[in-house]
Amino acid sequence: MSDGRVRPYFTTRGLIPENQETPIHFLRGSIFDKGYWFLRNHFQYPDLTINSGNLLITGAVKKAFIIKLEQLKTLPSKTITVPLICAGNQRAEFRPKVYGEQWEEGAVSQGVWTGVPLKDLLGVSGLEENALEVVFTGADRGTTPNVDEAVLYERSLPMNKALHPDTMVAYEYNGQPIPFKHGYPLRLIVPNWYGMASVKWLQKITVVAQPYEGPFQTDDYVYYPDPHTDEGKSPVTTIRVNSIIQQPLDHSIIDEGAHVIVGLAWSGEGQIEEVEISFDKGNTWEAVTLAQDQTKRYAWTEWQYNWTTPGKGTFTIQTRAKDSDGNVQPEREYWNRKGYGYNAIYRINVKVE
Amino acid sequence: MSDGRVRPYFTTRGLIPENQETPIHFLRGSIFDKGYWFLRNHFQYPDLTINSGNLLITGAVKKAFIIKLEQLKTLPSKTITVPLICAGNQRAEFRPKVYGEQWEEGAVSQGVWTGVPLKDLLGVSGLEENALEVVFTGADRGTTPNVDEAVLYERSLPMNKALHPDTMVAYEYNGQPIPFKHGYPLRLIVPNWYGMASVKWLQKITVVAQPYEGPFQTDDYVYYPDPHTDEGKSPVTTIRVNSIIQQPLDHSIIDEGAHVIVGLAWSGEGQIEEVEISFDKGNTWEAVTLAQDQTKRYAWTEWQYNWTTPGKGTFTIQTRAKDSDGNVQPEREYWNRKGYGYNAIYRINVKVE
Repeated sequence: MSDGRVRPYFTTRGLIPENQETPIHFLRGSIFDKGYWFLRNHFQYPDLTINSGNLLITGAVKKAFIIKLEQLKTLPSKTITVPLICAGNQRAEFRPKVYGEQWEEGAVSQGVWTGVPLKDLLGVSGLEENALEVVFTGADRGTTPNVDEAVLYERSLPMNKALHPDTMVAYEYNGQPIPFKHGYPLRLIVPNWYGMASVKWLQKITVVAQPYEGPFQTDDYVYYPDPHTDEGKSPVTTIRVNSIIQQPLDHSIIDEGAHVIVGLAWSGEGQIEEVEISFDKGNTWEAVTLAQDQTKRYAWTEWQYNWTTPGKGTFTIQTRAKDSDGNVQPEREYWNRKGYGYNAIYRINVKVE
Repeated sequence: MSDGRVRPYFTTRGLIPENQETPIHFLRGSIFDKGYWFLRNHFQYPDLTINSGNLLITGAVKKAFIIKLEQLKTLPSKTITVPLICAGNQRAEFRPKVYGEQWEEGAVSQGVWTGVPLKDLLGVSGLEENALEVVFTGADRGTTPNVDEAVLYERSLPMNKALHPDTMVAYEYNGQPIPFKHGYPLRLIVPNWYGMASVKWLQKITVVAQPYEGPFQTDDYVYYPDPHTDEGKSPVTTIRVNSIIQQPLDHSIIDEGAHVIVGLAWSGEGQIEEVEISFDKGNTWEAVTLAQDQTKRYAWTEWQYNWTTPGKGTFTIQTRAKDSDGNVQPEREYWNRKGYGYNAIYRINVKVE
């Protein structure tokens, strides 16, 4: 008699612009249905009827040029599995609380992107000697605080990251054209950096000789550790090492007996080397079982741990991940005013009845 | 270019059994699309192939009988607008936190139910002199803590509530057969009580001479004010007076200028008489504008307040509702171990930029 629609849905944070979060607790596997890729927008969706699929490469280059989607597809391509992690993921968990979209754990997704390495395109254009950064311009536009006119979504990369062989102009996701809401026809993909760097609806690449200072570079996506001043600020870049528990859910009531605790771990600084779990408030830690595919160097790591409940009562379960660069999740989050890069030790409480 | 699917979805709390919450912040209007009625189940969906639409009325009655859906539809009916409020709505907001489904504000819905007053059916059966309560049995079954065998979902009402002229056996919701997930073909509707009383997939009504003590009557849906013992316990019954803000969202960043603050208020004890709003931590309160339809005595109340931001900064906005029975939302929630009946003054924080 069921209508068969027993499925999780997005968690809606906002509609205009559209910001929806994936119910990550219910999902396993590297490649999700496009219905489960979180949506994070700064503006309303762009009108792509003008210039769609024409990418301009200009600025401090020897030879500016326009390349069309169909031409891009004829160039040597790369296909890599990349998780996109929103810099504001888990913002709701900062204490004291911070303002902004109250993301829980689900502003993350992972899939297989196909595209042309950016360095190949910059190889065609050539770089002027004074080239310092590369600015990426999306087609989405709107107003933002402290700027009088409408602005386009725009971000820059330092030259070394722009020339990294895996930084690419992507045109396919999971073997299909990129869905409109996720950046069709072209999206910059910047592995290991938080998602704000992977500019959607990419229409222009500008090499610049001066530091780029647009609002999404120098106002948003900046760590401000001081609640009131800009002292000590630093840019948001690489994904911090992190782990989450997908199952059981926080503050759930579970039966006595055997349970499989499952979760994910990721880091933009290195490979996940270990995820540990603690049932005694962090006094002792035990390694969980990782499921890693070494051929996918950027992919997140699924993990699991078989737990037999030691009786009835309430239990705190904590996890922390370590990466190959020596990073480990901290006891407390790195608090910052705009709520980026949350990666404190993950904690849930469950009641066994 | 948009695929047109800019819409809110349920927030998924669980899938087996299915528990999904309505993104209440985005919804206005008395009658929602069925896609927005929250889903709260104790068990998996029942198999209705047996006895579907046959309702047995038995127990301490003069004449037990079975009535079919088609016969019910020929009896004099009532049509009333009723909100269904889950007793665990806002459970996530209790401090200290409590265990169970972590509902935010969206385990609420409202619509128009059509059915036959229960008192008419009990008038046909007659009541034995020792009749004390009426037990309602749904078709959904499963296991529950502290009970060895599978149980059916079952709840009782005291005789005065069972005989209230608006307590009904409903067969239509918003002019259509009740959707399967919401109780098809028959659902008990108990206005003014929390949703656990409105038994779905109703298949049997049993008049009893002793207090009914099933697990959903005497274990769940009981207020336990003590964290560890059952001292001071009392049954969950009538919906407590409450108000919520639908817009703006908690911890959102909003522009300077004019904003319409909108929300809902409800009470099972009486009519909503006033909703007040405070911007100074509760030192002063101001009445908001209520939109009430006096012909719908059970319906919730939509309200709004026009707010011009007094400058940049952070603001706490609080609301409290008062009902015609003299009830007012308390400063702090009535804490109870299983997390029912949350109705503390509603508070959000916003940042004006």
